Amino acid sequence: MSHSIKIRRPDDMHVHLREGGMLQLVAPLTAKDFARALVMPNTNTPILSGWDVAKYRGEIKLAAPGFEPLMTIKLVESTTPEIILAAQAAGAIAAKVYPQGVTTNSADGIDPEAVMDTYEALEACGMVLCLHGEMPGVFCMDREAAFLTSLETIAGIFPKLKIVLEHVTTAAAVRCVERLGPNVAATITVHHLMLTLDDVVGDKIQPHNFCKPIAKTPADRAALREAATSGNPKFFLGTDSAPHSRYHKECASGCAGVFTAPVAMPLLAEIFETEGSLGDGPVLERFTSEFGARFYGLPLNEGTLTLVRKPWTSHREYQIPSNEMDSARDRVRPFLPGREMPWQTSL
Amino acid sequence: MSHSIKIRRPDDMHVHLREGGMLQLVAPLTAKDFARALVMPNTNTPILSGWDVAKYRGEIKLAAPGFEPLMTIKLVESTTPEIILAAQAAGAIAAKVYPQGVTTNSADGIDPEAVMDTYEALEACGMVLCLHGEMPGVFCMDREAAFLTSLETIAGIFPKLKIVLEHVTTAAAVRCVERLGPNVAATITVHHLMLTLDDVVGDKIQPHNFCKPIAKTPADRAALREAATSGNPKFFLGTDSAPHSRYHKECASGCAGVFTAPVAMPLLAEIFETEGSLGDGPVLERFTSEFGARFYGLPLNEGTLTLVRKPWTSHREYQIPSNEMDSARDRVRPFLPGREMPWQTSL
Repeated sequence: MSHSIKIRRPDDMHVHLREGGMLQLVAPLTAKDFARALVMPNTNTPILSGWDVAKYRGEIKLAAPGFEPLMTIKLVESTTPEIILAAQAAGAIAAKVYPQGVTTNSADGIDPEAVMDTYEALEACGMVLCLHGEMPGVFCMDREAAFLTSLETIAGIFPKLKIVLEHVTTAAAVRCVERLGPNVAATITVHHLMLTLDDVVGDKIQPHNFCKPIAKTPADRAALREAATSGNPKFFLGTDSAPHSRYHKECASGCAGVFTAPVAMPLLAEIFETEGSLGDGPVLERFTSEFGARFYGLPLNEGTLTLVRKPWTSHREYQIPSNEMDSARDRVRPFLPGREMPWQTSL
Repeated sequence: MSHSIKIRRPDDMHVHLREGGMLQLVAPLTAKDFARALVMPNTNTPILSGWDVAKYRGEIKLAAPGFEPLMTIKLVESTTPEIILAAQAAGAIAAKVYPQGVTTNSADGIDPEAVMDTYEALEACGMVLCLHGEMPGVFCMDREAAFLTSLETIAGIFPKLKIVLEHVTTAAAVRCVERLGPNVAATITVHHLMLTLDDVVGDKIQPHNFCKPIAKTPADRAALREAATSGNPKFFLGTDSAPHSRYHKECASGCAGVFTAPVAMPLLAEIFETEGSLGDGPVLERFTSEFGARFYGLPLNEGTLTLVRKPWTSHREYQIPSNEMDSARDRVRPFLPGREMPWQTSL
């Protein structure tokens, strides 16, 4: 086992960078390891138009100079083909569908099978469709599996539309994506490679491990690990790193989202090592730095990231800047805080 | 539908009354509706001996005069037949087994199949064996089902030992208890008649709905509702009301337990009404006031409880007395706080 591995600079094909003080905090933490990231549009002020895209990209670039945000818009009832073309002109490369009520800021979500004309517009202009693959109203452990028929329907009608099933959590979703054509891919998060429902409610209740879709069974996690390390280009990294303040996590009704940005690449090295797939890094590199870019039709990054096998202890929490008081209200806990990490990163 | 129903005063055959200030707060809230309750022994200072039983009963009676605590001891590695007899002499009517690590204060738990001589002693003296029916190390949604073979083994070896499978949460457990002999019964909680996993992690993460065993699927809940309203004497009420301060609930690693004592009987009236099983109360009365007492060989309560169909709003929280500060640290949230309840109770 080598003690230092150099891979092509990675992309995070699914991240939440938020707004305001939180954006100031988390954008540089993603930019530290990732050259680019696909930025989700479900901010408190949603990203719905070309104008929103341009404005939000400007804010991100101010927060993390040198980092390249890959922009998205949120599909809502009022999204027209004209809006899609204008968003693309402003730099959006993908559009995200949230079924209503399935996650943070999805109250304006839509029925994924009711916007076929919008998909036609996406297909025509070559934008990618990103799906939050959960069926509303279904029991939480079955929500993703229940969504797969919608995925199959959409992929069947639009064989040239590039579709990403985001943050897959089940063996059923992995099998479905494998089975569908080359126009369908999936992102896998770091935390879903590590967690099961036991880490959320199996011992104590742990809101910092709570996300949508909820982590599933050990067999599901094994299927995700197999997919991530398989070398199948349909599966690539999208961390879904999703920070919330401790105030919004440690309460009677806590928000969904796991903040993995600061530990994503160190943990991936550890996971791939555990799975016997690390070696000198080629399988990890394809998962983090090639398959996503290729699917989106982007050039590969030029620089490299070095993974060093040298233990360090992850941060316990981060302070959100520009808020009034130094209180728990204004702090964010990363995934696995204060844990000894065998791998660290440097450029 | 009558607007006022009188039933025999109920028993809660499974409750956590805690110690200190929390005991002062919650014992009267259980005593308001229930004449008696079987008090669990997994306090911070566990109830292990006759001496502990006598002392703890004294504390409870001071906190809730007129209320009759039904006492239990916790079975641990060091429990001997002599200890069991001494505990019985001090008034304990049951002994509780916690498999190691499955819930609050169960680090000293035991292997339920490794204490057969203790079960022999319980059988010989006529004490009841109460089982927390979860298999450690198993995926949380499968823990109860995995325990059922242990239950069948113990029930098979000791056909005269009265066994209660506590707080059943699955259709599998209901079927198993139905199938086993008349020496095996089960308690059902109010919250497991209402919740599924969706109420814990299906939308936001809700620590006040988090308990062990975790609430399961809609089909499991339907099986529990059917069992509770079936008139089968093997199923009776044990609320497992288990208060924790907001400080220990709304945090990064929250405790298991749902505090239902103040709303248990109002909610049961509502549930039985929804299930079409309320009428003038006889089915509810048997579930809350007869089957448990009969199984334990206790006389039925003399008094009555009146259920009145008159809306009220449940408390949002309760202050724990005798702690220093009036802060969230010292408050307890009941199940379904601030909710309009169609039924209320009076003596």
